[in-house]
Amino acid sequence: MTARIEDFANDRFAAENGICYLEVGEGFARTAVTVESRHLNSLGIVHGGTLFTLAATALFAAANSRGKTAVGTNLNLSCLHAVSAGRLEARATEVARSRRISSCSVEVVDERGRLVATLQGTAYLKDTPFPPRQTA
Amino acid sequence: MTARIEDFANDRFAAENGICYLEVGEGFARTAVTVESRHLNSLGIVHGGTLFTLAATALFAAANSRGKTAVGTNLNLSCLHAVSAGRLEARATEVARSRRISSCSVEVVDERGRLVATLQGTAYLKDTPFPPRQTA
Amino acid sequence: MTARIEDFANDRFAAENGICYLEVGEGFARTAVTVESRHLNSLGIVHGGTLFTLAATALFAAANSRGKTAVGTNLNLSCLHAVSAGRLEARATEVARSRRISSCSVEVVDERGRLVATLQGTAYLKDTPFPPRQTA
Amino acid sequence: MTARIEDFANDRFAAENGICYLEVGEGFARTAVTVESRHLNSLGIVHGGTLFTLAATALFAAANSRGKTAVGTNLNLSCLHAVSAGRLEARATEVARSRRISSCSVEVVDERGRLVATLQGTAYLKDTPFPPRQTA
Repeated sequence: MTARIEDFANDRFAAENGICYLEVGEGFARTAVTVESRHLNSLGIVHGGTLFTLAATALFAAANSRGKTAVGTNLNLSCLHAVSAGRLEARATEVARSRRISSCSVEVVDERGRLVATLQGTAYLKDTPFPPRQTA
Repeated sequence: MTARIEDFANDRFAAENGICYLEVGEGFARTAVTVESRHLNSLGIVHGGTLFTLAATALFAAANSRGKTAVGTNLNLSCLHAVSAGRLEARATEVARSRRISSCSVEVVDERGRLVATLQGTAYLKDTPFPPRQTA
Repeated sequence: MTARIEDFANDRFAAENGICYLEVGEGFARTAVTVESRHLNSLGIVHGGTLFTLAATALFAAANSRGKTAVGTNLNLSCLHAVSAGRLEARATEVARSRRISSCSVEVVDERGRLVATLQGTAYLKDTPFPPRQTA
Repeated sequence: MTARIEDFANDRFAAENGICYLEVGEGFARTAVTVESRHLNSLGIVHGGTLFTLAATALFAAANSRGKTAVGTNLNLSCLHAVSAGRLEARATEVARSRRISSCSVEVVDERGRLVATLQGTAYLKDTPFPPRQTA
């Protein structure tokens, strides 16, 4: 069963940092953030942690989207252009999937559509369903 | 000139997420975070973005520590064990440095000293000093 | 000045391993290999080193294509499907370039066009021209 | 059962490129190569593919060392110093292992013990034994 946006409502770290889920489909997800001063580092540019969190949130949504729990094993961020303001959007696509491994690729673009970062990641697929079943 | 902890006082993203600088030395830095519910993802485990931000904050402190501005180009996070509580510490070491490139390695350990994640990163060294000069 | 295929004639490691340059253009390059038993590992599948060498050869051609010497700093290979025979082609594109950094992305596809591996890489751009000037 | 060096005798790609297995133990392996002109690229320095193949060969030996077949999913090479001659040795250590995932770290050092490259990698552990059973 395909996951829906509301299945990620408990993603506290994304929510705390103003990162929104825009779309979750089978093997696909989009997230966005509007850069504020709280997202910057000591140099006054967007912290690598902000870029990574935005992109990894989309990546895990894509990896979990097919109803099986995915946990990240290896994630590689490439920072292409420094950003200090505006809205950023991450678009994650699952580029390969076997029984146990989901490989995803994420592009982070700014308002003008310029590619500012990429994230490649591998997630391990567990036997448990996603979203996790609630205990009463 | 070697950077000091106070030179990173403007790292808003780290501060907002409860990540503390413990130590900054020449080619070395340590950061820490105490896991709270705000650091978790939809699965109830520490968000990859939290691990990455903790580790990347230490890495950039190490890369900037020698007084030249460093910006990240490529950062690779390996998640070794899922964590959901406790205190995490990141220890960054600059393993190689040329005129323009700083390569750093970070280990993230939990309270028991268990390695829970690693981060490898490359930063580009600009001609501008760190900390950046203030404009009045 | 844009580099040409013949500028890579001294790439001994690629040549020794049967890796051919197909095309080199501005910010772009393609290489190919036909899998033989010498490209396999102990499991009888294509060695990660073969996939990496094929992809990295295309990546460095793309990074060096604009006439400035590029040296790799960080390269991240994702293996999506195991391969044991056939022809593989790598397509490298420079996705971002500043004065000192070239960021490239490579897709490795098999004969059916299936994506079997990806490589993301960052190269540092030196002040020396490419191809290097010959000494008599 | 722990794998032995002879279990890797069919690693054709390593052998073709002069890469030797020095040691294989539980969660550990070492390989070496003596740099020849066939290992160089168009710039006259050791090809990234040589460094990667040396390091990945050690990594997979470490990941397969405990008798379960491991296949690479994600491998990240950091090049710290350019090399053009001499003997290189790769030392791989399995830093974490769960039922399905082996995470390894490799250091590549030159004759003087200088760290010239690092490789971080994640391998997926299959249910089949290593070495694979021979069919008559």
